[in-house]
Amino acid sequence: MNGAGWSAAKAPARLEALLDRLGPEGGPRGIYTSVFAQNAREDAARAARADGLLAGALVSVKGLYDVAGEVTHAGTRFLEKNPAAETDAPAVARLRAAGAVMTGHTAMSELAYSGLGLNDHHGTADNPAWPGRIPGGSTSGGAASVAAGLADVAIGSDTGGSLRIPAAFCGLTGFKPTQSSVPRDGTVTLSDSLDSLGPIARDVAGCAATWRVMAGRDAPETAPAPLRLRVARGFGFDDLDPQVSAGFEALLAHLRAAGVEIDDTPLPLLSDYAAIPPWHLTSVECRAHHETAFQTEAAQFDPRVHARMGRADEVSAVSYRQTLNARTRFAAALSAALDGQALLLPTVAILPPAPSDLADDAAFNRLNLLALRNTTLANIGDGCSIALPYRHAGVLLSLMLVAGHGADEALLASARTIEPLLRDG
Amino acid sequence: MNGAGWSAAKAPARLEALLDRLGPEGGPRGIYTSVFAQNAREDAARAARADGLLAGALVSVKGLYDVAGEVTHAGTRFLEKNPAAETDAPAVARLRAAGAVMTGHTAMSELAYSGLGLNDHHGTADNPAWPGRIPGGSTSGGAASVAAGLADVAIGSDTGGSLRIPAAFCGLTGFKPTQSSVPRDGTVTLSDSLDSLGPIARDVAGCAATWRVMAGRDAPETAPAPLRLRVARGFGFDDLDPQVSAGFEALLAHLRAAGVEIDDTPLPLLSDYAAIPPWHLTSVECRAHHETAFQTEAAQFDPRVHARMGRADEVSAVSYRQTLNARTRFAAALSAALDGQALLLPTVAILPPAPSDLADDAAFNRLNLLALRNTTLANIGDGCSIALPYRHAGVLLSLMLVAGHGADEALLASARTIEPLLRDG
Repeated sequence: MNGAGWSAAKAPARLEALLDRLGPEGGPRGIYTSVFAQNAREDAARAARADGLLAGALVSVKGLYDVAGEVTHAGTRFLEKNPAAETDAPAVARLRAAGAVMTGHTAMSELAYSGLGLNDHHGTADNPAWPGRIPGGSTSGGAASVAAGLADVAIGSDTGGSLRIPAAFCGLTGFKPTQSSVPRDGTVTLSDSLDSLGPIARDVAGCAATWRVMAGRDAPETAPAPLRLRVARGFGFDDLDPQVSAGFEALLAHLRAAGVEIDDTPLPLLSDYAAIPPWHLTSVECRAHHETAFQTEAAQFDPRVHARMGRADEVSAVSYRQTLNARTRFAAALSAALDGQALLLPTVAILPPAPSDLADDAAFNRLNLLALRNTTLANIGDGCSIALPYRHAGVLLSLMLVAGHGADEALLASARTIEPLLRDG
Repeated sequence: MNGAGWSAAKAPARLEALLDRLGPEGGPRGIYTSVFAQNAREDAARAARADGLLAGALVSVKGLYDVAGEVTHAGTRFLEKNPAAETDAPAVARLRAAGAVMTGHTAMSELAYSGLGLNDHHGTADNPAWPGRIPGGSTSGGAASVAAGLADVAIGSDTGGSLRIPAAFCGLTGFKPTQSSVPRDGTVTLSDSLDSLGPIARDVAGCAATWRVMAGRDAPETAPAPLRLRVARGFGFDDLDPQVSAGFEALLAHLRAAGVEIDDTPLPLLSDYAAIPPWHLTSVECRAHHETAFQTEAAQFDPRVHARMGRADEVSAVSYRQTLNARTRFAAALSAALDGQALLLPTVAILPPAPSDLADDAAFNRLNLLALRNTTLANIGDGCSIALPYRHAGVLLSLMLVAGHGADEALLASARTIEPLLRDG
């Protein structure tokens, strides 16, 4: 058994059981887009003889990471024509070197450009934790792979919530680390400013172990002190689904009854956040990377993604730079304000929609923005954040912690402290 | 005597002699825009009792650094209406703490937005090293202060050559360090991407000591090995003034005759540089910081600066971001290609013009771009660079070394090795 609880010795047998379940079609549509059967068998054989931090963990890979010998599709049609990657992205290579078994590429929102995870090219998985509902995105196939027991861990990316939203919808733990902690080489970019690479797993320990390997760092010799917890109601509490709101308030009462101290001091700085339009960063930066395809292969795109990319034309270069500057100032101020603290928020304002709720563009756009609203704070704030599942009155919900730049280990320590209290809620 | 050769004990007397020379008018127009007489006397008294690395050095401050109690004008009219700064910029505070005597704010190109240094608001200094010619810019007053013996060191900024061009024109040593080595808080921004803070001094030792203090670092216990020198003629050798060209070739022969090895291998990567338009970065980033004044106080601006800022409207946000991305790729590739090496180039393609050479806008624009061409390589390359003075056939010239990101100490070690050979050229 390694640190996070996977068995290295059983890796080959567990992989074969997984491959059997997936079958020749690769399993349910919208989870795996390709299965790395041959390479995974080599990984598993190596893992069985190794003692890396992740030895034997079955790890699914969002389709935007380069994996040697595979085409990096990033949920698109236009990138599927590219040749296979020659080498693993550094984050993937580190996982493999630590004994992880890379199981396959997973489905995702096209270019990771939505928090809901629909994809007409590769299909959208049904939510294993809530049948009939979407799994959330953009790491939709990744979250579904873990929730369905088709992987131990999923690695994905989080530009505005794309690890934490599907974790929340699928009853899992999703960790968006500080952006600079994990190298982004060998991945398809949505937003240079905001993209963060990280894991979805069943628990905090699984996220912590996976992230440390991706970041090339060891566990701290002594865990840092947990952060003080704070609820600042000036942001993130409007327009909540009543069940989200009721569950969050009940959870706070439960935590306080269990002796957890939670500060209620407002954070006026959060009102500055409203003046920073994240779409300036995503639309312009996405276009800068994919401009040729945007201009010449429009018919290949999800029309909703193409429309969001098109909004880059509404932003002048000067406005874009002003948004970058405002974001830099806000991020510095947020990290300073949260020194030693973590904010508590509902991860997502809404419950997982059904596909039929998203059929028209206006509803899709409204729910997409509402789903992303709370999570994006940590991306614009250049901080770190974790989503932890809990239930209230039988409904699957998620608690989010947000901490400042580089506070990842302290955030993980806090999450581990809270985690057992969520299970008996 | 401190490390760089200034006398701490004599600081008060040297300052009084300087203040006498400057007189009530603050000296010749275009050098000092204000003299910090009272605070400088306090600095000098403190320096006389101290042993900081710069104890007793008389340091002039480009008008874009905050100095407590002084208005940060950045060469403009519109910023002169601002209240005085409440605190020193961190780089200034570090210098003061190391025993430097801050003598006054110096004249500069408006917003540092030209390599030639003309300024109608505050005047343009005559070149102390070449009377009748301009001193170069944008750190024009700073270079003139050192060349005229009105400061030991000038601190300034270099966005495309603004430390190295005036150093070259005034027979001084100018050092543009790696951008990230010196905090830029408390300074007026021209370009977030390119602005680097550093010194102009009489010699490499003066630059090295000043930069180390600005960067908050100690001298290395053992100096790093000098870099291997390389001349790559694919970039920087077109359109040279014949005297610049003749002098550079004579210098190479002289260095080789003195036993210095110089590699002649071309560097094809340099042709990628031509595809990165620095004006995308300067115009957009300058506008983002100064947009309100640009729009509402146009008459307050140097029309040539206002016109360059106006060019931001020719750049789409997507193009601007593509330039940022291309620059990031080029910088990484240049640092990798120059591992252990420094490029040798003529610092400036032209000799210092006379003011009358710059009377019409077309001539100004042509000579400004030509003056900036070679130096800007290090800014776009996110590297470090130093300009070293020499003479050929009696004409004042300058040799530039360009090295990769973070190679500052190795570059300084190389410059110290070459410096004595330039004096007997």
